[in-house]
Amino acid sequence: MTAPADTYTPTDRTVPTRSRARASYDKALVHSILDEAYVCHLGFVRDGAPVVLPTLFGRVDDRLYVHGSTGSRPLRAAGDGVAAPGLPVCLTVTHVDGLVLARSAFHHSLNYRSVVVLGTAHQVTDPEELRIALDALVDQVVPGRSADSRPANAKELAATAVIRLDLNEVSAKVRTGGPNDDPEDLALPHWSGVVPVQGGYGAPVPADGLDPSVALPGYLATL
Amino acid sequence: MTAPADTYTPTDRTVPTRSRARASYDKALVHSILDEAYVCHLGFVRDGAPVVLPTLFGRVDDRLYVHGSTGSRPLRAAGDGVAAPGLPVCLTVTHVDGLVLARSAFHHSLNYRSVVVLGTAHQVTDPEELRIALDALVDQVVPGRSADSRPANAKELAATAVIRLDLNEVSAKVRTGGPNDDPEDLALPHWSGVVPVQGGYGAPVPADGLDPSVALPGYLATL
Repeated sequence: MTAPADTYTPTDRTVPTRSRARASYDKALVHSILDEAYVCHLGFVRDGAPVVLPTLFGRVDDRLYVHGSTGSRPLRAAGDGVAAPGLPVCLTVTHVDGLVLARSAFHHSLNYRSVVVLGTAHQVTDPEELRIALDALVDQVVPGRSADSRPANAKELAATAVIRLDLNEVSAKVRTGGPNDDPEDLALPHWSGVVPVQGGYGAPVPADGLDPSVALPGYLATL
Repeated sequence: MTAPADTYTPTDRTVPTRSRARASYDKALVHSILDEAYVCHLGFVRDGAPVVLPTLFGRVDDRLYVHGSTGSRPLRAAGDGVAAPGLPVCLTVTHVDGLVLARSAFHHSLNYRSVVVLGTAHQVTDPEELRIALDALVDQVVPGRSADSRPANAKELAATAVIRLDLNEVSAKVRTGGPNDDPEDLALPHWSGVVPVQGGYGAPVPADGLDPSVALPGYLATL
């Protein structure tokens, strides 16, 4: 079955075993969840056992770039060229939007938006793609920042490994709304509702020795 | 080598291949990072491929409890008794504390605190331990909440699966401080420093139909 261009095609691995109504394959939704984040949790298998590490990532269209050092274990496994088999990974991004407090302990929940990407990651070896990927990694954290920093030089590029994971086998999962208490619990005397979870930024702290004439850039004022 | 009682013993799997100076096995640090979170990213292997799912967890001493439904795939694999082999997992918790903006793109970083727990998870089958685990899961999100909600009844207990993961093979990783620019970049005209990342809560939103005489509990006012 061919999915419309605005959705990812569900697979056996991306249809959840529970809460199926919360799953979505909508590209715009998936992209919006990814773009609000800059840290993912990357899972891979090492010596038969799972490993999950927090890592910076950036999105360019239907490609994700994940940052690492050439010394890191998963990147070595991802190989260094077209002939490399690549590294099977699962890349997961989660936003928590609210604490859902029900009258019953059983119906406590979270409001959240998550994306799970399955696939095989390959190390980026093309120099031009590597530059695009590094800009994307910086701009994912602070949009506009890559143009306002010194680009990587040859030595730094050689010391930086990036792996690419294409967005093909992807699902989003979203919970919204209030608690779903059972009717017989509605009269219980426990407060119930949703506590919104909020993220934000504090006032930027200049680096030691920063030239005081360097003004705070606009892209930080609007972060 | 026996580690002191206040640290976890490092293993080949918990000594990182890079940034070793950021690694710690201090129990108090590990517990503080875990206790500030209530969502973890749980990794396991399914049909040879890694899967990473966001999940609620709670800590009781040196045990972590992870929530799931009896219908979920990892929990079925974790088995239902002492004889079950258990499920190899990696449980990771991450807090982002700051965006580190260097003059060079290469030295951009994050300030963060993370914990990675490796081990084998087993399904909790003892009814008393299951009740303790469910209270811990609720109280991890909102301390004090389990005592102010209706406890799970027999039907709900039967529908709730919890897996336990003991804290043995554990490491923390922490980055703090400002950017580490190379000396030759310090005079570049780019703003550099740290943007603090802050979390918080919005005003609680009562559930539809909540009795207006139910006051906001104190444990939410101090969340």
